[in-house]
Amino acid sequence: MIEAGPPNVDLARVVKLADFEALARERMERATFDYLIGGSWDEITRAENETALRRRRLRPRVMLDVSSIDLATHVLGRKAAMPVGLAPAALPGGTCGGAEVPVARAAARAGIPFCISTFSVCTLEEVASTGAGDRWFQLYIQKDRSITRDLVERAAAAGYRAIVLTVDIPVPGTRERDVRNELPAPDHFANLPGSEAHGQERDAFVRELNEQRLSWDDLSWLASLTDLPIVVKGVLTGEDAHLAVEHGAAAVVVSNHGGRQLDRVPATIDVLEEVAAAVAGRAEVYLDGGVRRGVDVLIALALGARAVFIGRPYLFAVSVAGEEGVARALGLLGAEVSTAMALLGISRPADITRAHVC
Amino acid sequence: MIEAGPPNVDLARVVKLADFEALARERMERATFDYLIGGSWDEITRAENETALRRRRLRPRVMLDVSSIDLATHVLGRKAAMPVGLAPAALPGGTCGGAEVPVARAAARAGIPFCISTFSVCTLEEVASTGAGDRWFQLYIQKDRSITRDLVERAAAAGYRAIVLTVDIPVPGTRERDVRNELPAPDHFANLPGSEAHGQERDAFVRELNEQRLSWDDLSWLASLTDLPIVVKGVLTGEDAHLAVEHGAAAVVVSNHGGRQLDRVPATIDVLEEVAAAVAGRAEVYLDGGVRRGVDVLIALALGARAVFIGRPYLFAVSVAGEEGVARALGLLGAEVSTAMALLGISRPADITRAHVC
Amino acid sequence: MIEAGPPNVDLARVVKLADFEALARERMERATFDYLIGGSWDEITRAENETALRRRRLRPRVMLDVSSIDLATHVLGRKAAMPVGLAPAALPGGTCGGAEVPVARAAARAGIPFCISTFSVCTLEEVASTGAGDRWFQLYIQKDRSITRDLVERAAAAGYRAIVLTVDIPVPGTRERDVRNELPAPDHFANLPGSEAHGQERDAFVRELNEQRLSWDDLSWLASLTDLPIVVKGVLTGEDAHLAVEHGAAAVVVSNHGGRQLDRVPATIDVLEEVAAAVAGRAEVYLDGGVRRGVDVLIALALGARAVFIGRPYLFAVSVAGEEGVARALGLLGAEVSTAMALLGISRPADITRAHVC
Amino acid sequence: MIEAGPPNVDLARVVKLADFEALARERMERATFDYLIGGSWDEITRAENETALRRRRLRPRVMLDVSSIDLATHVLGRKAAMPVGLAPAALPGGTCGGAEVPVARAAARAGIPFCISTFSVCTLEEVASTGAGDRWFQLYIQKDRSITRDLVERAAAAGYRAIVLTVDIPVPGTRERDVRNELPAPDHFANLPGSEAHGQERDAFVRELNEQRLSWDDLSWLASLTDLPIVVKGVLTGEDAHLAVEHGAAAVVVSNHGGRQLDRVPATIDVLEEVAAAVAGRAEVYLDGGVRRGVDVLIALALGARAVFIGRPYLFAVSVAGEEGVARALGLLGAEVSTAMALLGISRPADITRAHVC
Repeated sequence: MIEAGPPNVDLARVVKLADFEALARERMERATFDYLIGGSWDEITRAENETALRRRRLRPRVMLDVSSIDLATHVLGRKAAMPVGLAPAALPGGTCGGAEVPVARAAARAGIPFCISTFSVCTLEEVASTGAGDRWFQLYIQKDRSITRDLVERAAAAGYRAIVLTVDIPVPGTRERDVRNELPAPDHFANLPGSEAHGQERDAFVRELNEQRLSWDDLSWLASLTDLPIVVKGVLTGEDAHLAVEHGAAAVVVSNHGGRQLDRVPATIDVLEEVAAAVAGRAEVYLDGGVRRGVDVLIALALGARAVFIGRPYLFAVSVAGEEGVARALGLLGAEVSTAMALLGISRPADITRAHVC
Repeated sequence: MIEAGPPNVDLARVVKLADFEALARERMERATFDYLIGGSWDEITRAENETALRRRRLRPRVMLDVSSIDLATHVLGRKAAMPVGLAPAALPGGTCGGAEVPVARAAARAGIPFCISTFSVCTLEEVASTGAGDRWFQLYIQKDRSITRDLVERAAAAGYRAIVLTVDIPVPGTRERDVRNELPAPDHFANLPGSEAHGQERDAFVRELNEQRLSWDDLSWLASLTDLPIVVKGVLTGEDAHLAVEHGAAAVVVSNHGGRQLDRVPATIDVLEEVAAAVAGRAEVYLDGGVRRGVDVLIALALGARAVFIGRPYLFAVSVAGEEGVARALGLLGAEVSTAMALLGISRPADITRAHVC
Repeated sequence: MIEAGPPNVDLARVVKLADFEALARERMERATFDYLIGGSWDEITRAENETALRRRRLRPRVMLDVSSIDLATHVLGRKAAMPVGLAPAALPGGTCGGAEVPVARAAARAGIPFCISTFSVCTLEEVASTGAGDRWFQLYIQKDRSITRDLVERAAAAGYRAIVLTVDIPVPGTRERDVRNELPAPDHFANLPGSEAHGQERDAFVRELNEQRLSWDDLSWLASLTDLPIVVKGVLTGEDAHLAVEHGAAAVVVSNHGGRQLDRVPATIDVLEEVAAAVAGRAEVYLDGGVRRGVDVLIALALGARAVFIGRPYLFAVSVAGEEGVARALGLLGAEVSTAMALLGISRPADITRAHVC
Repeated sequence: MIEAGPPNVDLARVVKLADFEALARERMERATFDYLIGGSWDEITRAENETALRRRRLRPRVMLDVSSIDLATHVLGRKAAMPVGLAPAALPGGTCGGAEVPVARAAARAGIPFCISTFSVCTLEEVASTGAGDRWFQLYIQKDRSITRDLVERAAAAGYRAIVLTVDIPVPGTRERDVRNELPAPDHFANLPGSEAHGQERDAFVRELNEQRLSWDDLSWLASLTDLPIVVKGVLTGEDAHLAVEHGAAAVVVSNHGGRQLDRVPATIDVLEEVAAAVAGRAEVYLDGGVRRGVDVLIALALGARAVFIGRPYLFAVSVAGEEGVARALGLLGAEVSTAMALLGISRPADITRAHVC
């Protein structure tokens, strides 16, 4: 369970995103930490997201004017203070004040998008009530399409700016840490009235709720419900990226769900170029999975992403130090991106090219 | 020695095949565990069977109808509940009730083929007497061909559905664990009347019994003895796979004997495509070696196998928890295959294609 | 802080450059050792400089006359006793007598170039006053170009033979060891009158002092100030190497600043051929980063370098044993180069060819 | 110092060559063990000889007649009981009865060639007096060619069957273990009258004695001295293998001196094909370095070697168990080759082809 209190860590001692993971490992209940860190089965893909990024090499250019670095970019047509967003995550419990609210505030302060999950602890309206900010709403298509339609309408009404359709979870991945820890089901899912009574374990509930009989026409249907742009999250092949665009996606997220769904799929960075080539500029391409350093952000941009999303780093940050923790995490990451841009010889995210990676 | 008793492990705590290996390591006599886990010489091939599978990456497709997953397939023209069978194994001793009988019962319950070994602890008739089930009989060609003929006739009479000819053991591999442990010879081999008196160590007995003067014509001769389909097990090259088919094999098993014969041969998954290409659809292709996860099964199918066989995992399972142990192992593996199929976007084993692996 | 005293290590027990690192690790203040050993962020590039060299393989030729090995070469038109120089380094403090002075003396004794840093502990004039020797002066281009001009003029007046323009530090890299250790700023930078009062941390001072609004025209301007040859240090691409030559560089140093600037750039040895090809003989090419063995020197020469520069090895050597330490380090390295040349079948640095590496 | 006594190890517990190394590590004086095991500088090449062989993979063929395996081959026109010989080695001391004599006897019993070193502990005549056996004599070309001529004549007179000219040691490699251990020089070199008085350390003695002013004409000169075939040992390139053959070599040994000369050269197995292609059947090709298993022997044969030579394994064997130790080592290796041949589907060394390795 994640509960925000006054931060009792010295944030000045936190100098990189990975420090939050180390702090969380020490401080969180083991089952909660395991829930956050875990991947499916052998956790090969989870680990490879990071190692594949670390294997990439940059080609820096010198003697260029980097006196004025600006990290800002545009994501779905809106300005983002840096090419980074916060990925949706189903938190393992806690109270609303300790979960999405501090994250939403930190993201708004940092000027970057935050996407909340259908399975958020707070209602989407509670998160929206925290004030300004570029907020996106993540959903699945439910067997009962009226649930989906209601969620879309509520999200639009609450000022969410995009619908993120997660497509890589027709059934839940098997995270063996959670199986061993007998992770308790959350009492309810705030966005789903009536879910208090589900009285069953989480995966079975999700499996019962969500549609397994999907087709790309469902994406067209979803797009027809709303004027909000649809972001398709969980694509790992050029074929699917093409289909997503053909059926109305404004953007695709190259994602393997942080290695939590199908183990043994490639690291996201290793399929990004294939996806970007298939999209061919018709939509935006994002990436999540394994981003821990500013250089990771730039590597993804060089290989075709407009922005990246981070997940575990901000979850660990909020768990150990609340809103200030997330703010610190974003501050560190932004500083790293800025330094790396200067050392690459670029001033704007748009300046990066394929020639900046080996 | 493997002896079945009431299972004294909490099977609910066993969440993956590898857990049985860990339990067996704790509970079995060291010499017996070593016999099962060991490979020949430096055990490079034994280890690589697993690592080579783990290096492969899958390409999952999304937004597909996976509401109705069916693992069933056909193997040698008969339905199998999933594309998995149990490989033959010469057990190191124990009583019949603790050896092939519980395995045969578990395989029958799971609806998958079980292949018993010539060097089984039970007679092939005892195994057959356990009831229905798709059972195959593994044999070698003996110097005295009448022994071979008798075994084939007995197998056919007892309802075995296929003859599996092992071709990779003209001489036994050197498993140094067994040499160091001075593994005692079994008292006798149940299927070979008179073997009680052999009074010599196992490898010498096998070497004396089995033919080293083989040619592919021996396969034709074997095929002429029976209407049962002949499966040739132990092929690692396209050349030999072609020859096997030319001489009457209904199927070939890409196998390196679990790394127990010639060390330094490739992992089976790394030669599967070569073999499948040489067979070119004229026979079925199976694979054994290193399969520990549902994703391994699907990787093998994508690269040309119709089914895979597992060995050590069920041996460890039966050793620690008897028939229920094997049933649990098969249940876990089937659940993994099912989840992986859903996450790959396929509903039937036949849906998988080469494009599903990188 | 580095302070020279009478060497209290038995230099006869030091048999390779890496021994000095081990001794320094034991004997230096942790923060100072960390300052010297550290790289930026995850220190991937720092480590890879060494590992990439160790991965290269040599092709030795036999039955050749190697009775008279001569390590001497020419660097910038002057004879060097071996194809090795001492790279510039901003030392973390100490007194002049413990810093560049013993290094300068040892380099002069060894007959090789020594490049001092703008941020040296001694003034460039103090270093020059130690007597003969091939000395180069490293600088940055400052926002206030008059500072740069003064430094160039002082260097020329003091007999420095080359100006080394460092181009890979528009902003300082983030070395997290120093951040964690709260490395104190040096009291002042001897070459920069008035710097005593900067009263701020080192990186901020450097950032404020140095120009971030650079272009290649600044190199032309620098070249116009002096008759000294200009060496451009910090190039990792063929594109920039070409531009450097076009704008007047007499030599380029393939360098990633010892992995202290942008982490995730390639090991220098891995881009040396690209740079050498782009330069195409129009200028000299040097390399620094990861050179710890005589064979490393020869590998770099075979791939296009005229000479290599070492940094950390001599810094550790001077820190543990003063001038004699550096002399021992250079003696060991020279002996290794000599032995390796004999075993490669070459007598002169110029004899090495691309065919000597795989 | 190696001294033979009654073997006090239970040789039945020794099941592979590497066991002798482990026993030697426990039992020998550290400095002597280090002398034998050590390589030059970072010992990268020494380690890679073994790891490169372990990375190679075999392609076994099945259903072949392997009822009659014969390991015998011809080496330099003489029958060898298996395609393995004993490489020359300069032992670190001891008495003649504990050094080459037991080795020579074991090699003769096993029916394989044994090459003694110029720097043997026994005189070449003492070794010859042990009786029959295929013995070769290794030498260098000395500055004083009369020394070389005398050695050749003595070797011929004593019945040696080949002269092995070592070409990879114009200067000794730097083995830092020996430097650190201050390995004492041997009292004298038995084959070199007058060497008792050299009173200097080994490397300096060797450097003074041996010629560094070599050319391929020296090989022609050597060949002119004798009717014995000349084997050139220490070739790692196709270019030099070609030159060796052109100047009269009857065979070349692909060798990096066990990683004791130039560190960072390739593993011998990785250049064997290049050498064999350059030789193109005009001479025999052998390999040494890293052979520890029967499969290593066959891998080398498949890639072009007629035979392999082992060094450290027999040195460790003689050091821990005298003649019986060497006999056991050769027995184990021969048994492994035999088993591996059967499992590869071949009956004679000549049956192996390039198609047997991946």
